[in-house]
Amino acid sequence: MTNLSPSDKALVPFVSVDHMMQLIHHIGIEDMLRGLADYIETDFRRWQLFDKTPRVASHSAEGVIELMPTSDGEVYGFKYVNGHPKNTAEGLQTVTAFGLLADVGSGYPVLLSEMTMLTAMRTAATSALVARLLAPKGATTMAMIGNGAQSEFQSLAMKAICGISEVRLYDVDSAATRKCAANLAGLGLTVTPCTSAEDAIMGAQIITTCTADKQYATILTDNMIGAGVHINAIGGDCPGKTELAPAILHRSDIFVEYPEQTRIEGEIQQLDATHPVTEIWQVLTGQAEGRTSDRQITLFDSVGFAIEDFSALRYVREQIRETQLFHPLDLLADPDDPRDLFGMLQRSLQA
Amino acid sequence: MTNLSPSDKALVPFVSVDHMMQLIHHIGIEDMLRGLADYIETDFRRWQLFDKTPRVASHSAEGVIELMPTSDGEVYGFKYVNGHPKNTAEGLQTVTAFGLLADVGSGYPVLLSEMTMLTAMRTAATSALVARLLAPKGATTMAMIGNGAQSEFQSLAMKAICGISEVRLYDVDSAATRKCAANLAGLGLTVTPCTSAEDAIMGAQIITTCTADKQYATILTDNMIGAGVHINAIGGDCPGKTELAPAILHRSDIFVEYPEQTRIEGEIQQLDATHPVTEIWQVLTGQAEGRTSDRQITLFDSVGFAIEDFSALRYVREQIRETQLFHPLDLLADPDDPRDLFGMLQRSLQA
Repeated sequence: MTNLSPSDKALVPFVSVDHMMQLIHHIGIEDMLRGLADYIETDFRRWQLFDKTPRVASHSAEGVIELMPTSDGEVYGFKYVNGHPKNTAEGLQTVTAFGLLADVGSGYPVLLSEMTMLTAMRTAATSALVARLLAPKGATTMAMIGNGAQSEFQSLAMKAICGISEVRLYDVDSAATRKCAANLAGLGLTVTPCTSAEDAIMGAQIITTCTADKQYATILTDNMIGAGVHINAIGGDCPGKTELAPAILHRSDIFVEYPEQTRIEGEIQQLDATHPVTEIWQVLTGQAEGRTSDRQITLFDSVGFAIEDFSALRYVREQIRETQLFHPLDLLADPDDPRDLFGMLQRSLQA
Repeated sequence: MTNLSPSDKALVPFVSVDHMMQLIHHIGIEDMLRGLADYIETDFRRWQLFDKTPRVASHSAEGVIELMPTSDGEVYGFKYVNGHPKNTAEGLQTVTAFGLLADVGSGYPVLLSEMTMLTAMRTAATSALVARLLAPKGATTMAMIGNGAQSEFQSLAMKAICGISEVRLYDVDSAATRKCAANLAGLGLTVTPCTSAEDAIMGAQIITTCTADKQYATILTDNMIGAGVHINAIGGDCPGKTELAPAILHRSDIFVEYPEQTRIEGEIQQLDATHPVTEIWQVLTGQAEGRTSDRQITLFDSVGFAIEDFSALRYVREQIRETQLFHPLDLLADPDDPRDLFGMLQRSLQA
């Protein structure tokens, strides 16, 4: 009865960064982006089931640390994520993340996973899922403004999920554009580096903005945006951080994940709190309209929501079942007799 | 430049259950309880520095899953903890937990640790730290009502920190009392198993209640409580779960960790929201009085607060520095060029 090695209940599958990268290659990056988009769409369609709350943020001068919990009543999930724009200058990631799933019935964790890679994947899958709903039919070209860590994932997701064949790259730092172009070479996209944002948006039906400054910035000005485009704004994602001129917002039909959170963190923090927005889940379920005319400007004011992380973790949990791409982590104390935690401690000394 | 093994920045020290148990034995359980109490006292004395928020709870029919974040401006910490009273019947722990510390400046995690064992230790250390402040001088005997997973830790902490020499045990399940008595044998305490709560409190200056029913219960009735005792009530720690008759509360001077949380979760959820309570940190800093007379009934209405977990994680982080009692965990993606997450993914395929 005195079993000293951790029981199955005590061991939580852990997906490291290395295992996540192996999993992405095992599945194939474009297949995994499509798979993630399917899981996210499934969960958005059952939106009202979820326990939703704006993220719990701890702000400091340097950045923010956030916890993003949610639950569908059977499975609970949360993500830890930071946002520290100054990190890049010190050789660190602006955003790192990990996440957890747990069984609601017992409270026991069932998956711990890196989520830096996975967040890049799920953000791109979400953007492309929404662009498939809102972009003009037959869209072939995306302008990618901001060529940092998210840019290649966005480009490949728009290819895999929306059928985009060309990306036009621009970043204030031309080294970032060269990096992005080199990474995308040979992956089936026509890649066009550009020397200005105005140049990048030429002929683009989808415009993605993803820059990392923690300040009110104007990446797109009003006169740059013509009729009929879809704007995928993912860089404005915390209070005080926006990318679009307010005039663009007034000309657009605005779509969001979770208004309570987007009004705090998204582009629409620049607008009146009553400005109308449409929730993506309502478009997916047919309760609201998406694009209704060729000349309409649609804007996805994306800040990232806990359900997307939940979906991504759920996908990973399913995918690793048939692989060995995880470590069993001795995270939970699980004595033979649950009331005998102290006995477990004492017996460990005798081992 | 293409380093494929995780860098130091990507590796987070992880303290498993096994390593935590080794650490406790390495330090010595009573020394560690004293060490934890010192760290908790230090942090309670600088209470106003901390970013405080009631825990973020996700309730279900079976129990609750909670995130408890806090920060002192330099270090951020949170704990994941569940409370599922029915788990015991299925051979699972009622409470399991793990926690994390991160650097506020960069947002990078710096410690991941099991916290089932550590929570048992910090809860006991907190109870004893408070009892040292509030119990009558020269207290020798504690009644321990509820002999589950927390009971031995409470007993040893009261010995190590308050100089208690006798514990009187009672549980509705006599097997739990036998378990507790057997575990405490030979550890320097006079252990007296009792057959009723009334018997257990005979001659006790400190009465600790720690039962796990998720319902309004009455573990102590009004006529059981004489003048001069200190009640350490740790089992009433979520909405709908209390252990004391309201009349006891009205005869006691009530001390709490964080009123905003205790009014939701503690014994005082039975009282008017304006009922006066004293915060422990104010007693520690001399801003409020503790025990003022021999006949006073003091009550510590303890629900567990995030700062105690923060202190415990901070203590563990210091203690493991000179040991090898942790695993480096590949939790964070850390490419050579922070903007080149995709390049890191691509290179992992070539490895």
